[in-house]
Amino acid sequence: MRWTRKDLLDLQSLSAEEIVTILDTAREFKAVGQRVIKKVPALRGKTVVNLFVEPSTRTRISFELAAQRLSADVINFTAEASSLKKGETLKDTARNLEALNTDFIVIRHSAAGAPHFLSRVLEAHVVNAGDGAHEHPTQGLLDVFTMREKKGRIAGLNVTILGDILYSRVARSNIWALQKLGARVTLCGPPTLVPQTFEPMGCRVTSHLAEAIADADVVNLLRIQHERQRKTMFPSLGEYTSLFGINRERLACMKPDVLIMHPGPINRGVEVDSDVADGSHSVILEQVTNGLAVRMAVLFLINGGKPFAAASPPAEPDLVAQ
Amino acid sequence: MRWTRKDLLDLQSLSAEEIVTILDTAREFKAVGQRVIKKVPALRGKTVVNLFVEPSTRTRISFELAAQRLSADVINFTAEASSLKKGETLKDTARNLEALNTDFIVIRHSAAGAPHFLSRVLEAHVVNAGDGAHEHPTQGLLDVFTMREKKGRIAGLNVTILGDILYSRVARSNIWALQKLGARVTLCGPPTLVPQTFEPMGCRVTSHLAEAIADADVVNLLRIQHERQRKTMFPSLGEYTSLFGINRERLACMKPDVLIMHPGPINRGVEVDSDVADGSHSVILEQVTNGLAVRMAVLFLINGGKPFAAASPPAEPDLVAQ
Amino acid sequence: MRWTRKDLLDLQSLSAEEIVTILDTAREFKAVGQRVIKKVPALRGKTVVNLFVEPSTRTRISFELAAQRLSADVINFTAEASSLKKGETLKDTARNLEALNTDFIVIRHSAAGAPHFLSRVLEAHVVNAGDGAHEHPTQGLLDVFTMREKKGRIAGLNVTILGDILYSRVARSNIWALQKLGARVTLCGPPTLVPQTFEPMGCRVTSHLAEAIADADVVNLLRIQHERQRKTMFPSLGEYTSLFGINRERLACMKPDVLIMHPGPINRGVEVDSDVADGSHSVILEQVTNGLAVRMAVLFLINGGKPFAAASPPAEPDLVAQ
Repeated sequence: MRWTRKDLLDLQSLSAEEIVTILDTAREFKAVGQRVIKKVPALRGKTVVNLFVEPSTRTRISFELAAQRLSADVINFTAEASSLKKGETLKDTARNLEALNTDFIVIRHSAAGAPHFLSRVLEAHVVNAGDGAHEHPTQGLLDVFTMREKKGRIAGLNVTILGDILYSRVARSNIWALQKLGARVTLCGPPTLVPQTFEPMGCRVTSHLAEAIADADVVNLLRIQHERQRKTMFPSLGEYTSLFGINRERLACMKPDVLIMHPGPINRGVEVDSDVADGSHSVILEQVTNGLAVRMAVLFLINGGKPFAAASPPAEPDLVAQ
Repeated sequence: MRWTRKDLLDLQSLSAEEIVTILDTAREFKAVGQRVIKKVPALRGKTVVNLFVEPSTRTRISFELAAQRLSADVINFTAEASSLKKGETLKDTARNLEALNTDFIVIRHSAAGAPHFLSRVLEAHVVNAGDGAHEHPTQGLLDVFTMREKKGRIAGLNVTILGDILYSRVARSNIWALQKLGARVTLCGPPTLVPQTFEPMGCRVTSHLAEAIADADVVNLLRIQHERQRKTMFPSLGEYTSLFGINRERLACMKPDVLIMHPGPINRGVEVDSDVADGSHSVILEQVTNGLAVRMAVLFLINGGKPFAAASPPAEPDLVAQ
Repeated sequence: MRWTRKDLLDLQSLSAEEIVTILDTAREFKAVGQRVIKKVPALRGKTVVNLFVEPSTRTRISFELAAQRLSADVINFTAEASSLKKGETLKDTARNLEALNTDFIVIRHSAAGAPHFLSRVLEAHVVNAGDGAHEHPTQGLLDVFTMREKKGRIAGLNVTILGDILYSRVARSNIWALQKLGARVTLCGPPTLVPQTFEPMGCRVTSHLAEAIADADVVNLLRIQHERQRKTMFPSLGEYTSLFGINRERLACMKPDVLIMHPGPINRGVEVDSDVADGSHSVILEQVTNGLAVRMAVLFLINGGKPFAAASPPAEPDLVAQ
């Protein structure tokens, strides 16, 4: 297929075919990361702005490296140091950045819909790096990429998302991508954090861990955001761990080839024990590697790069090392 | 003409011919910003340090992009994280940076004259990115560039600078450049903020808005620095807006082809209404674009680059895309 | 000799021959810094991460420039903005960075041994940019490089290290390198800051300044860390200066060709007067220049670059300007 979108705003609005196109293209970029010279000239002379109004070192670095390896120039713009504090609107900030002939605005913002808003007012490409509790599409894509790489397919997989789902943009992006590609999604966690409102999305919702993990091909653990004060809705950390933390015993109740995933950073001993996080079922670090490949693919495609097909031909000129 | 200066410290000391040389060269670099590959090799292997002792995200990013597009390497050095806090002098900090074989020090500092001081102790090129209430020469240049591009000339223009002029380095740099190039400058604002001391500079000074805008070809609005506590000299924001804020009604009293300018970030509803800021008379975003071109031209010229003439020949080798 | 180490963790474990190899290679990279185009392609397509868990602008910038001039991509990761605050372990942070296909982790950390720990868990190259009170190997190397360049040799030199030695990683790295290369080391300062425990390392320890400087070929002044609260061990600044500060009078008691060194940033009027710091014996700024060359050499060698011999052949292909 040809890629036609100017932006990557969410996974809800993508077709299954579009998602697969990103995954196929990302596979090629993952191979670039194994080379001695890990750079391709695809975005040379382009500028990527990381506009992070909500802080995130990990995601920012992943996008920064993705841009560098495509030979783009990168500008980091964080809210702390910015004129946003002087009362400038997000729209004005973004249009000022665009006026500097920048080509991509990668935005993280605490307000759901901020990337969509920018998409309407900018000609630059907009990439959502996480907007409030709404979506985190490149995280969803890297999760699905990892599952597909390890399991060979998404259709028919049983995927359990475990933890603090209520306000999780990671969960939402996972659910959209997984369902579009034919997986069955189970959501599990304390009842206050996994309300029944997710059932209309087609997910199984349960508070019973044993039920949620028994037939899972993948268990995707969400980070417990314990630095946020949500006392009225959240059990104690100890209580959470005793009920939902994944340890060796609970791993033994899962399928022998189950994948354990986590978007990071992990709280060792809280949502997952070190035994499991560092064990043979865990693909947590590969998710990080795949995130870089997915972000390179997204920047490449929305810039007009030619998608890679499932059975790829020899390296395209754009991917030949500089 | 040949360019002979090692630094760009202020506009007061430049000749009209030098200013025009920067503007002509900037025009070529503006065209670079429209290309698919927005990079030229002019400063490859050179290092630009952004030494920002007073914070400014917008100006820092504009210089950073200017350096990147000239293929220079860029180091950002902000006072917050620096040894300036450990009591090192500005001179020692700058000489240490120079000892790292850096070629350009772009300095913003709260003390007037800091760039001139560095210019005397360094062999590296020094660019003033704003020094206290003294000058902000690249802002003055981009403002004049924008007026000349839109009006075709500066000589004979009536330019009104409106607002908080007393401590404004933007106003001072504008005044020097405009008068050297033959414009007539009017300063307007509350009497406490626009004292009569500017009259010896050859400016008309008035507190009557109607008088200041009636014959203006350009109205350059300065940002109200309401985050600074200057209660004894400044009316309330509401009072300022009611007396000097530019809205649709006041725009209607201006010449039909008046340009509305602002160095940004704008306070919507204070010094300018959104109607006007986003309207057809506003060139506020083009100023941002032109600022990048002007900064590229300045770095290029003080590095010894060959100036571009008014009627430019075909692209010079230095400007051919890498 | 061939270089075989994957990391640079400390000078204690290096042989004299390895130290000399770094110094010889650094000499070639110092020459690169004098070129018009100060870049070589040796690390093109590689990524260097500056993982600074303890802040240091000067050292970070030196490593950043070293990486840029070797054509590597650079990511700055500081603890302030990082997930280390969210409770992630150093190991997890570093392995996440490695999972992004990064090649070098340059780490500064307040805990002694942090780089050694990372070296065991990472395949990426690890460079110690200062670990607690343990070592600061590139500082030690640049100090020895500077002495050798100025004096033509290290063996037989009398080197006095003066000041706050007790918790100084700079002192420790100096001592190791100097003794391996055959210098005699004297440590001098207030008794509380230079305990006798250094004598087993083979150093002369004294509190008598006159004795320490009389026969010194080099006096290396350590920075007084007066921003740290160590009231019980430290005399007042005034008292320190009156007893140990180097001024014109004390310089007159030294050998006529003594070198005055300081790792910076200097406290003018405390450990050294401006007369001396800016005088003909001072090589303080050359140390900065040499630090860049040493860091380029270290990154180059641990990446597998071919060392340069004492009598260098014509420029190697890796060092030819891009």
